Amino acid sequence: MNDSGSGGFEQRLADIVGQANLLTGEAVGEDYAHDECLTVEPAKPRYVAKPATAEETAELLKAAGEHRVPVTARGSGSGLSGAARPRPDGLLISFERMNQVLEVDADNHVAVVQPGVTLAELDEKTAAAGLSYTVYPGELSASVGGNVGTNAGGMRAVKYGVTRHNVLGLQAALPSGELIRTGGKTTKTSTGYDLTQLIIGSEGTLALATEVIVRLHPRLPHGATVLAPFGDLDQVVRAVPKIIASGLDPHILEYIDNLTMAAIVYKEQLSLGVPDEVRDASQAYLVVSLENRDNDRLHADVEILGELLGALGAADVYVLEGPAARKLIEAREKAFWTAKSVGADDVIDVVIPRAEMPAFLAKVRELATASESGAVGCGHAGDGNVHLGIFQKDPAKRRALLHEIFAAGMAAGGSISGEHGIGHAKKEHFLELEDPAKIELMRRIKQSFDPLGILNPGVLFDQESQ
Amino acid sequence: MNDSGSGGFEQRLADIVGQANLLTGEAVGEDYAHDECLTVEPAKPRYVAKPATAEETAELLKAAGEHRVPVTARGSGSGLSGAARPRPDGLLISFERMNQVLEVDADNHVAVVQPGVTLAELDEKTAAAGLSYTVYPGELSASVGGNVGTNAGGMRAVKYGVTRHNVLGLQAALPSGELIRTGGKTTKTSTGYDLTQLIIGSEGTLALATEVIVRLHPRLPHGATVLAPFGDLDQVVRAVPKIIASGLDPHILEYIDNLTMAAIVYKEQLSLGVPDEVRDASQAYLVVSLENRDNDRLHADVEILGELLGALGAADVYVLEGPAARKLIEAREKAFWTAKSVGADDVIDVVIPRAEMPAFLAKVRELATASESGAVGCGHAGDGNVHLGIFQKDPAKRRALLHEIFAAGMAAGGSISGEHGIGHAKKEHFLELEDPAKIELMRRIKQSFDPLGILNPGVLFDQESQ
Repeated sequence: MNDSGSGGFEQRLADIVGQANLLTGEAVGEDYAHDECLTVEPAKPRYVAKPATAEETAELLKAAGEHRVPVTARGSGSGLSGAARPRPDGLLISFERMNQVLEVDADNHVAVVQPGVTLAELDEKTAAAGLSYTVYPGELSASVGGNVGTNAGGMRAVKYGVTRHNVLGLQAALPSGELIRTGGKTTKTSTGYDLTQLIIGSEGTLALATEVIVRLHPRLPHGATVLAPFGDLDQVVRAVPKIIASGLDPHILEYIDNLTMAAIVYKEQLSLGVPDEVRDASQAYLVVSLENRDNDRLHADVEILGELLGALGAADVYVLEGPAARKLIEAREKAFWTAKSVGADDVIDVVIPRAEMPAFLAKVRELATASESGAVGCGHAGDGNVHLGIFQKDPAKRRALLHEIFAAGMAAGGSISGEHGIGHAKKEHFLELEDPAKIELMRRIKQSFDPLGILNPGVLFDQESQ
Repeated sequence: MNDSGSGGFEQRLADIVGQANLLTGEAVGEDYAHDECLTVEPAKPRYVAKPATAEETAELLKAAGEHRVPVTARGSGSGLSGAARPRPDGLLISFERMNQVLEVDADNHVAVVQPGVTLAELDEKTAAAGLSYTVYPGELSASVGGNVGTNAGGMRAVKYGVTRHNVLGLQAALPSGELIRTGGKTTKTSTGYDLTQLIIGSEGTLALATEVIVRLHPRLPHGATVLAPFGDLDQVVRAVPKIIASGLDPHILEYIDNLTMAAIVYKEQLSLGVPDEVRDASQAYLVVSLENRDNDRLHADVEILGELLGALGAADVYVLEGPAARKLIEAREKAFWTAKSVGADDVIDVVIPRAEMPAFLAKVRELATASESGAVGCGHAGDGNVHLGIFQKDPAKRRALLHEIFAAGMAAGGSISGEHGIGHAKKEHFLELEDPAKIELMRRIKQSFDPLGILNPGVLFDQESQ
């Protein structure tokens, strides 16, 4: 950054957002120094600005460009890749004041929201219209802007897709200080390059979303969750393609290995009604949720599902009703926190073709054993998205293990992250393992948006000298 | 292009694809001079090369770059924007020899195909596995590569989405002559910018798909089609959001205005069982198709749908069975050909938020009347994608009318094309009406892929001097 005139820059920021919405020095709280990533060192930013409007956000970017100050965007700080970790010499733009649901449009099945809106707030507003924004990463305090940044997924992606499939349009501030609108309240367009899709998942390196048009789906009134313990993990993951092929269209299809389930049950004090002898003989669990607008059809489908699970090797099938079902799903959502609380040193989320899960998980076990590490977890089985808690205190050994796990995932036709993103945390692996021709192309795309390199430098790519 | 040494270039092309797969001069047939767009002048390319592999395709691009020869890609030539219309001094890469379904992977519900595979061929291959590639633009001779180029849609998009939602990965040749692989057999990834999504819909201006991983859905065995005549067009389009909200999840939801229906019935010699007095009193029709894995549920849903349509103002409801249903859907698919055969001067496909259809169609009628033109049609009502046949012989008047219709669509929150693309045909309107900041950004993205500007110059953007 250009240090001369940083006082002038500070005044400029204050002029844009108002003195009360600019934090510097001691006033910058610890929360702004990190997201929830376990491995990226916190760093307090020099400035925190809280814009109230898209125009203020654009002005902030313009000022940052003129002063060559790096800019990081922050929603709720619940990301797992360190992409919201600011730079010590930088400006953090916190969207906490841009937190309004501007419109719930029931005819077009969309909502228009500001980036700081949390999923909990959006869920409440859409419920009133009988609709739902179906992107549900583990944390309901997550913001929609953060969803866009990381292309968040979550448990319902098996039926409804990830953020990419549920964001139809954006207003976005470019590093130049221009505001653009992309897409709209339509599910399709073939009118030039799809800037919406390019910005989604770019982890704050291309443009900052200042308004998001999200797709809503009818909220189906009837649901049930089935828990099926299996004697072995392979059986669980082998069952997944068959369940997808059944046409029962589950909106949740998760596997949980026995260590993770034990931790979840213990931490959340869950009672699942699974007898001790079944639990002791189980290596893994499948959790399948169905929903329907018709209760009779739901029950008929649960019956079919139960028979199918039995045929696929489940030791038994437990239909969880009401609170017990909700509790299990909530506990699964908190798997990250459970992993953290039992001492995981990292949490990763490789994605592979779902039919590759048995071979991939076998490979992971082999790699973990060889490195004297732990690698246990759960995952969005329907999507082939494997979430692993990594237990290895030694940074060099952990780094080597992660590298091998990521390489194995890519060799299986997958990629490093299904929904957490690369951020700072996995950049080194990304740059080492990804095709250099693609990295080079992505760098040039980055340059086409951000020639001065002010947006989240050091995320995805190494910081270039300015 | 650099004219010196074009003999050397020709030899180079022959070395790459083999003399038998290179056409020049008189050997270049008329078919290569155009796609199905009504308004873009045909032009025979100087060279037609038919690569057999991705590597040959990449080599062709490398050679074209070195010789500064413009390159246009062609699948089946069924596009409607002129994006496959080559340049007289250019190279046309025809994917007709790269027409293999490489794999139908039933566990991961994907197929891996070469770009020249037609939808008819893919449908046959996937049917054997009980699966379906659900992108169905009007023409089953269309190629998957062409789908990718234009982000094709079709009638089933209301349930299954457009090409963008059904292509999970690509192998693509870059203008540099490099081959990259993007995405994979997974429905999600958050690992760098989404190059798959950026290339889809780029109309052959960024990279050429040499292999496509498409998503497949279970092929549901039971289906029914309901035809509902309405006394007025507004009622039809007002009914659409209610049908979507019902949760009946139709896979086809089309409106057809009475002139278009008359032309379709006449051309296809259809007998729909609609009494003369109902037909004479009808201004428009809704066509709704439901599918289910269970026949009883299907019939129950058809009943609910019938009641809903009655409540929404349908004059009557006709359930079409088997051949009659298929015939109507096929006829609707051929609406473009019908429009062409009755003398339409252009066919456009503005997309708007579906709830805006009544106001938009009223505006279109007003604009058409004022310009003494005809504008009739049908459309993917569930998507807000309005297909209009434009009847106006005078090019200046037609141009002015189109400009106003596109502007009205954009003012209603939509865009110029929902699925046909911009190509050469609508470029002028695109450049006039679209936000200059977005055009500039798209130009820079184009440059990041194709610094020499060899890929389909003149499509989307005006040709720049080289």
